[in-house]
Amino acid sequence: MTIPIPFRLFALGGASLALFAASLSASIPPPPSAVELAQQGDDLAWSITEDLTTEIGPRMAGTEAEAAARKWAIARLQAMGFADVREEPFDMPTWVRGAEEAWLTSPFLPQKLSITALGTSASTGPKGIEGDIAYFKNFDALLAAPDHLVKGRIVFIDHQMVPTQDGSGYGAYGRARFIGANVAAKKGAIATVIRAIGTDDHRNPHTGGTNFEAGVAPIPAGAISNPDADQLVRQWKRARLMRKSETPLGYIAEPLRMKLILTPQNLGIRKSGNVIAEVPGSDRGASPVIIACHLDSWDLGTGAIDDAAGCGIITAAAKHVMTAGQPRRTIRILWAGAEEVGVFGGKAYFERHGEQKHAVALESDFGADRVWRIDFKLPDSAKPLADRLAAAVAPFGVVRGRQPASGGADIGALVAAGVPTIDLAQDGTRYFDLHHTPDDTLDKIDPVQLRQNVAVWSATLAILANSSDAELP
Amino acid sequence: MTIPIPFRLFALGGASLALFAASLSASIPPPPSAVELAQQGDDLAWSITEDLTTEIGPRMAGTEAEAAARKWAIARLQAMGFADVREEPFDMPTWVRGAEEAWLTSPFLPQKLSITALGTSASTGPKGIEGDIAYFKNFDALLAAPDHLVKGRIVFIDHQMVPTQDGSGYGAYGRARFIGANVAAKKGAIATVIRAIGTDDHRNPHTGGTNFEAGVAPIPAGAISNPDADQLVRQWKRARLMRKSETPLGYIAEPLRMKLILTPQNLGIRKSGNVIAEVPGSDRGASPVIIACHLDSWDLGTGAIDDAAGCGIITAAAKHVMTAGQPRRTIRILWAGAEEVGVFGGKAYFERHGEQKHAVALESDFGADRVWRIDFKLPDSAKPLADRLAAAVAPFGVVRGRQPASGGADIGALVAAGVPTIDLAQDGTRYFDLHHTPDDTLDKIDPVQLRQNVAVWSATLAILANSSDAELP
Repeated sequence: MTIPIPFRLFALGGASLALFAASLSASIPPPPSAVELAQQGDDLAWSITEDLTTEIGPRMAGTEAEAAARKWAIARLQAMGFADVREEPFDMPTWVRGAEEAWLTSPFLPQKLSITALGTSASTGPKGIEGDIAYFKNFDALLAAPDHLVKGRIVFIDHQMVPTQDGSGYGAYGRARFIGANVAAKKGAIATVIRAIGTDDHRNPHTGGTNFEAGVAPIPAGAISNPDADQLVRQWKRARLMRKSETPLGYIAEPLRMKLILTPQNLGIRKSGNVIAEVPGSDRGASPVIIACHLDSWDLGTGAIDDAAGCGIITAAAKHVMTAGQPRRTIRILWAGAEEVGVFGGKAYFERHGEQKHAVALESDFGADRVWRIDFKLPDSAKPLADRLAAAVAPFGVVRGRQPASGGADIGALVAAGVPTIDLAQDGTRYFDLHHTPDDTLDKIDPVQLRQNVAVWSATLAILANSSDAELP
Repeated sequence: MTIPIPFRLFALGGASLALFAASLSASIPPPPSAVELAQQGDDLAWSITEDLTTEIGPRMAGTEAEAAARKWAIARLQAMGFADVREEPFDMPTWVRGAEEAWLTSPFLPQKLSITALGTSASTGPKGIEGDIAYFKNFDALLAAPDHLVKGRIVFIDHQMVPTQDGSGYGAYGRARFIGANVAAKKGAIATVIRAIGTDDHRNPHTGGTNFEAGVAPIPAGAISNPDADQLVRQWKRARLMRKSETPLGYIAEPLRMKLILTPQNLGIRKSGNVIAEVPGSDRGASPVIIACHLDSWDLGTGAIDDAAGCGIITAAAKHVMTAGQPRRTIRILWAGAEEVGVFGGKAYFERHGEQKHAVALESDFGADRVWRIDFKLPDSAKPLADRLAAAVAPFGVVRGRQPASGGADIGALVAAGVPTIDLAQDGTRYFDLHHTPDDTLDKIDPVQLRQNVAVWSATLAILANSSDAELP
């Protein structure tokens, strides 16, 4: 944006100062809006993302690195001029990775696999375990299998996930990771290895949490990369054709065997915490707008797309709204702790603040690629507001979705309790190439797409923070 | 291609056998050429590549895996009907990888790097070493540096390699790997770590050999991936601005420090070998055409593009030439051993057969992407032959180059001794994304491009194997 001061008047020489002042006054535009500020080459989101991933790097929940990240976050948010910057600590069970190695040991020469342990995996002990592989083409096949095909074996769960723009494959295919080990453990498996929940072809397996029911003793649980899973499947098919011994009913095939060393540890209850900052609203009686990301990350990469970028995006947008002029509602920025390992920060926030009225909750936790869709879950009173929001983001290539917004993990408890929510849905085509892998590093972020995120968030947040009590709770 | 047998004659009922026979005789085309056989949906190259990478996998020179690969190779080449299939053993020094870990330890919290040892690297011992990093923006900067900037430090060599279709960046940027550690060792470095010689952005560093001069004691030498090198550079730039202490001449910056554990071992002299097979020519006095690939691979991936595919391509082409009809010259197929670690197979072949006259030598060892250019280094007598070859491969999208052919590592000694050579140059745009990494796996091979390679090789080989003594030696 430019301010068209009529410099030519000076050149003419005959213009009086009064004429100039009058002209200036007549042509002066309003101060820049939040979205205009965001479009002036925003680098706030980038610098948060770069600094956090460079100076702290991986920040596994409950560790010294996550504590260092909170200290860093408080200093950064204070330096940016936000109000009431604070840490809200909480306790959580802490799990950390150990050694992780695997080999296909038979019927061919041993071949090493690229493996990573899943969060809450049990340890094999340092000497590891070895067993026959029970192959299941997907999670449903494991669910349907009789126990005797699983008992005493290392379960392998395959899948066929492919990239989608809206990331919708994660829920369906992700079940193999979320609860595959639990199902296998109940059927007597000695360990579970899954084809990593990812869409890339690099030998960097995707980690992530797996969950055991109360009363089910955790077993070792790992994920191998897509090329390793392909290799396992090829060997498994060949082994099926290799005759180990003959019986009256046909031959017994050679088993495909795996050796597995995973030595993660449970460290017990440790400290984590949420970092909170605010843009104070002019109407202190109005309920706040809450915007969230998470500060912790998995340990394999530096947590650039998951979720340093999310913190960068929401914080840059809040800063632009603050710079443009005090909003009516308070904007509360939540950098949640311990999201990856069980959303402990989101739960702690809800326990502490769930009784308070929130106008609307939004989260950025799906990478750094562009926002392509806006979805709403708002009260009926907000229909005109939703129309205004959809119109405001349309110039940035954002379409209006037809499904209700779902929120995000860290605001999940708020949304479940009825707080309105809006999704600024990011393009997920590349997301599961990188998600929870060592490859989640700064170089994967496209500054142009990151900037579009900030512009869309700024446009949205400016409207929400100035919405009326008739529109939002 | 189809053979139009007039089946309709049977349906008419009135056709005599004589008429049918005459019709068949009149319309019968010549038997398919080698290139036509290759175009009938070749899967020989694919099956060699798939079977070798699946059943053997990584096959580091001098190891049990490489020996198993030779045994596999002999059985496969015999099964394909080649003549005089044999192993020609040789001795070679054997180096194997150990543990490999690295961290940036200061001035920030420790962050783990993805590192791999370079072939012939010394060991740090199991406890590792830690030291200040001396940063050099490229190999030339290290060459120019005074010893006191290097002595007692861990040298880091950066570079700026980008992909090229002809792979020409490897020679220039590769110097950091080929001899960087040697240069650093002579200046007193305690270890050398390079930005891996690769063009991808995955945390899978590229290994490869490094070379120490006689009389220079090897030091630990590793490579880190591009994202890790980016992180190191970002931390190095920040550390330069951090004031550790003040002096009258200015401040002393915080050093960037690295801890390094690399425990490779030299196993001494072990056995390796070349595997050789032949398509016997009709003129036993004519000198043979030699075509080469290498059977060994680095240990991180399964050696799919480097160089199982090369063995698949040349062998499929030789098979198609053999099937199409006996050629005049013998085609000798060389699956060389121990290429990656010092071209020991190529040297052993030359020592044994270098005195023999060879008509022409070709190698396939640059991946599995399509052939895009043909280059020649032939005697003047072969000018019409080169024209025929260029015309034969043009229908497959192959252009004629203006530079002399260079051959390949395993035929390097032959070419240096004057044997004519032809390059069927493959597209290298993706090659250094994968080269010498864990990602060199079967899924990276495009079957369509692999098939184009076989067709181009079949067209070329059919002409060469039937060339006259007036054209080639």
